[in-house]
Order: sequence, then structure tokens, then C-alpha cells
Amino acid sequence: MSTEKIKLSAQQIYDKLIDEDKILQLTGQIRFYLGDVDIIVKQKDVVGNIIQEWLQGWLEKRKIEYAPSQNTQMPPDFFLDKADRTKNLLEVKAFNRKASPGFDIADFRMYSEEIIAKPYMLDTDYLIFGYDMSDEGVVTIKDLWLKKVWEITRRMEGWAINLQVKQGVVHKIRPGVWYSNKAGNIPMFRCLEDFVSAIEETVYQNPKTHHDAATWKRNFLQAYEKHYGVKIKIPRWSDIEDTYPLPVKKKKAQ
Amino acid sequence: MSTEKIKLSAQQIYDKLIDEDKILQLTGQIRFYLGDVDIIVKQKDVVGNIIQEWLQGWLEKRKIEYAPSQNTQMPPDFFLDKADRTKNLLEVKAFNRKASPGFDIADFRMYSEEIIAKPYMLDTDYLIFGYDMSDEGVVTIKDLWLKKVWEITRRMEGWAINLQVKQGVVHKIRPGVWYSNKAGNIPMFRCLEDFVSAIEETVYQNPKTHHDAATWKRNFLQAYEKHYGVKIKIPRWSDIEDTYPLPVKKKKAQ
Repeated sequence: MSTEKIKLSAQQIYDKLIDEDKILQLTGQIRFYLGDVDIIVKQKDVVGNIIQEWLQGWLEKRKIEYAPSQNTQMPPDFFLDKADRTKNLLEVKAFNRKASPGFDIADFRMYSEEIIAKPYMLDTDYLIFGYDMSDEGVVTIKDLWLKKVWEITRRMEGWAINLQVKQGVVHKIRPGVWYSNKAGNIPMFRCLEDFVSAIEETVYQNPKTHHDAATWKRNFLQAYEKHYGVKIKIPRWSDIEDTYPLPVKKKKAQ
Repeated sequence: MSTEKIKLSAQQIYDKLIDEDKILQLTGQIRFYLGDVDIIVKQKDVVGNIIQEWLQGWLEKRKIEYAPSQNTQMPPDFFLDKADRTKNLLEVKAFNRKASPGFDIADFRMYSEEIIAKPYMLDTDYLIFGYDMSDEGVVTIKDLWLKKVWEITRRMEGWAINLQVKQGVVHKIRPGVWYSNKAGNIPMFRCLEDFVSAIEETVYQNPKTHHDAATWKRNFLQAYEKHYGVKIKIPRWSDIEDTYPLPVKKKKAQ
């Protein structure tokens, strides 16, 4: 048997899952075996945690090249090019399609430091599974998306990026509801530059990173130029803020 | 095929699992299937929630008589005698054997009311699985116990029964570590009567049930006598308290 692996981009993986595997038409299940008795496991919250392992099994079976990342705290989960770990980065997310996206993007502080050290990390592709589990335990994939980080994140009331804040302390960056057209849904960022602008504003606003704010943007721009050889322009948050309106009812009194 | 079911007691079920199924020597696993790819699920916390369903599958397969309870909040999980739901009550619990018993017995207030309405509920048999999951996802049953409620519960610092107390509000009755001989481990109750004494003391002590305290014991004794035809004697907690010593280091200053 050949051990040769094929090299695919995130987009090719997405297409293969949709067109060849027809993943949106598959049904799955979780089973527990002990002795000669087995049962279907009907725990919806488990699915989100195992899709990434399933995708790894799928990459193996389809002989697609990948290397798993050792750092589970930070994107990506997989390097699709083993020889060049600055490109073709793949992050896998999954959430119960009947609820809102419940996964974390990353710890805010670690993320703001990481994109200076590795600006190419911003180009990671997010492969996102919207799953369902019926009351009988039948698992289906209702939606599959391939997104960049700025396409699934947004501002929030009081902060330039949607954060999990516990007792005044900033923790994780959290996704928005990118697939919703409902009135009042806060729009996602339109581009990488606006996303980075929101990160910078939050570095400034967050007491834990406030002292890094003076140099953060300069450091980021230098790192980005060094890696890509192009200068990127990051707008000030105050200049773009109004183009991302918050729902009226939640607006603070002026 | 015969649909006739055999009637077993909790003790006979325990013996069958140990002696015939040799459950302590089995290895199990959880698998997730989607399309032609399947993986082993390595989530330890899932096992505790699915053992009860596994036991139900086992009861079916072994053609053992049972009826599942509709009330998931209160013991038992299974009636082993479909025709008489006041006897042969079976409750199933499971916990990661490498940690402490993490399951709940029941909501305190509901439990204290339930044992007056159904005093035979006190005689429920607890079939308790102490499981392990290896890093590779191999599930084994390290211990299986058959216990009465007073054999797995104990007092705690400040309360006559071990309780989950959140912001001053009494929630669940929690188990002790009945299989430990370590110095400083608080001993379990020695008998049904002492357990009921601790419940009564807690009805009195808990602000939410305090107003029921005057009549609780009389109501319980009447209900018990009505059902069993025998008078039971419940000691005062203050008379037995000292026979259940708390660890010295945690003792309050006199």
C-alpha cells in the first residue's frame, strides 16, 4: 500500500467533504460498547468535542497530508503543508446548529500576542461544522462553512470585539452569528484590517494588556510586513466603529 | 422467541454482573461513526452519563424484568418488579474511579418530602459503577458496589448531611467516600435510622424547610408505620452526632 499523501488546500478539503463525501447527507451516531451490550449515546454536547478527531480520522483515511498542532490553545489544529507551517493552516470548530455558536476562538491576550509573533496565523481557515443530534441520537451535519476569523467575529456592546468577560477580566474571543440575517444581529467584520483594528482597540481597553497598547500596532505592522513583504493599513477603531452598528435597543443613552 | 422476562432482585443483578458477565474484566469503548470514518471517543466525563442506559440495554438483553422510572429527579431509575413499585427499587450511579464520587443523590428538599410520601424509597438499592477511561479511550469498570443510601452518605462540617450548598442555599445531597479507610475520612451512617435523623436535623437547619421541621418527623414516622406496619425509632441528631466524628483539623474552636 502506498503511503503517499495528497496535498489539499482547506478549500479543496471543504469541497471534497461536500461534493464527494456528501457530508450534509450522512447520518452518524455515537455508540458505547461494554461486553456484548452496546447502546446509542444521546449526549448532544459530546459531538462538538469529537468532530475534530473525526476530521483527523477522515484526513488519514483519505490519505490527505496534515500534521496536527501541538498547541491546542491556539489555532490552527492542523498544518495542511507539513513542510511550510506558515500557510494552509486549518482550524476545526463545531457547534450544535440548534443553538448559537458556542465555541471559543482563543484567549484574547494569547491571541493578540500570537498574531504579532505569527501574523500568518490570521490567514487560518476555519472549517466549521453545524451539527444536530436527534432525540434518538442520530447525528447529522446541517451546515459546513469555510471562513476566515474576521468573517465569524464581530464587536459587542462595550468592546470592539466579542469577548467572554468574567468579573471584569477579559478571557476568550467568541464568535458572532455569521449566518444570521436577523434584524439586530451585529454584523461581522468586513475585512482582516477591521478585525485587527478591533483587536488593537481591545488591547488598549483591556486593563491586562493596556500597557502593551502603545507598541502593539507598530509591532504588528512590522511583523506583518516582514512576513508578507507588504505594508498593511489598519484603520483606527474610532474611524470605523459606526459602520458596525449595535442594535438600537441596546445602545447606551448619549 | 419468548418475551418472558425473569424477575431478579438488585442483589441477583449485582451477582450476575460480577459472576456471569465478569464485568470487572470487560473492556469497553465509545465510538463515533460518520460516513465511512469512525473514531474512539476519549471523553472521560461522558461515561458517567451513559452507564445507566447501558444497564438498561443489559437488562433488555438478559430478559430481566424492569420498568424505567419517569421521574429522573428522584430515585429509583428502575422498578425491578413491574407489578409492585414499592419494592425492588434500583438506582444506578457511576463515577470516575480516579476521582471522588461526583454524582448527586437528590435535591435535598424534594428528597425530604419524597421519603414521607414514599417511605419505601429509603430501601432503594444503589448499583454504583466506578469506571476508568484510559488515555486511549478504553473503558473498564474498576469497582461495582450495591449499597443502601445510608451506606454512601455522611455528615459534613456544619450540616448533619453532606450537601451541595450554593450561596447559602441548600441544593443536592451528595455522597461520601464510602470505600475509603483513610484517616480523616468522615464515616458513613451506620443505619437507616441515623440517616433519617440527619435528614430531620437538616430539615430543621435549612431555612427553606425550617417551617416544616415541627411536623416532619411525626409525618415520617406515621408514613413509615403505615407502609411497613412497624414503628421505627429515629434518634435525635444531637444524641448520635458525636459518634460521627469530623476530622480534628477541621473541628471548630469550642
